[in-house]
Amino acid sequence: MEYYAIFHLNEKNRGEMVLHNIENLLADLGEENIELELLTNGQGVRVLIKESNQLEQLIMGLAAKGVHFAVCSNSMRNLGLSRDDFFDMVEIVTSGVGELVKKQMQGWAYIRP
Amino acid sequence: MEYYAIFHLNEKNRGEMVLHNIENLLADLGEENIELELLTNGQGVRVLIKESNQLEQLIMGLAAKGVHFAVCSNSMRNLGLSRDDFFDMVEIVTSGVGELVKKQMQGWAYIRP
Amino acid sequence: MEYYAIFHLNEKNRGEMVLHNIENLLADLGEENIELELLTNGQGVRVLIKESNQLEQLIMGLAAKGVHFAVCSNSMRNLGLSRDDFFDMVEIVTSGVGELVKKQMQGWAYIRP
Repeated sequence: MEYYAIFHLNEKNRGEMVLHNIENLLADLGEENIELELLTNGQGVRVLIKESNQLEQLIMGLAAKGVHFAVCSNSMRNLGLSRDDFFDMVEIVTSGVGELVKKQMQGWAYIRP
Repeated sequence: MEYYAIFHLNEKNRGEMVLHNIENLLADLGEENIELELLTNGQGVRVLIKESNQLEQLIMGLAAKGVHFAVCSNSMRNLGLSRDDFFDMVEIVTSGVGELVKKQMQGWAYIRP
Repeated sequence: MEYYAIFHLNEKNRGEMVLHNIENLLADLGEENIELELLTNGQGVRVLIKESNQLEQLIMGLAAKGVHFAVCSNSMRNLGLSRDDFFDMVEIVTSGVGELVKKQMQGWAYIRP
């Protein structure tokens, strides 16, 4: 991989915009050249809930192209949600901010739409 | 150059604040020491439209000090705008997020006001 | 230290969330492994005003764990505030954005909640 980027989403109403940002990024740089993760925390985790999710097709299309999806376990608990509420391919990370720091320390770009 | 930074603006109503942030940064670090770019996407691109732009003087002052201005071509098209709607010195980039990733991979700092 | 991260807060109403983000980060990575700074500018500086501050206990708890707190001097002046309005442990920096650039150039991760 030539490029690495992690997107930070902590607001539910920015979800669709962020997913389209990621689509545009894959189209621009080429999906074979970039490793991408969408890290959600706060209300942003709601974007990855599987029930009645109007963005499901968009999310699944990105997952099929290799995009990683992550949910902050602190935010999940604070909102009374559990692992089963989220799409199967979602990874639960101990803390969303910890994930953002670790990825940047490994040289990943950070984007907060 | 000692410092490199890219500002990310994706909301129209944060435009003036971001431009003042950039002024402050030039004053603090010295315009001869830093290379700066303002990357706009989403509704943020409207800040760089030339017609009836109340921020024109501020923008031109920064351009004269070497600040680069960029517009996402996807956002431009989505909003029904074309190259001619923007100030002449603006650069149109294929995708705003691609530009943000490429610059950070080259060691630029990222600021999202 | 293994990790370095600077949080950017420029809105007053995101203050409590950011402080909890920092708590979660210390718990996740271990306070002995990470150096942290909360950089405030714009309306965000109000979160560090000492008078009648409902977040004082939370802030002081983080300061006791080694978290640094910084205020942009431009924002301070624009809001008619002075050094004495802020908690004693707060550092006043010439410009908030300058601090964000300098820290990232030294390899710190950037988080804008």
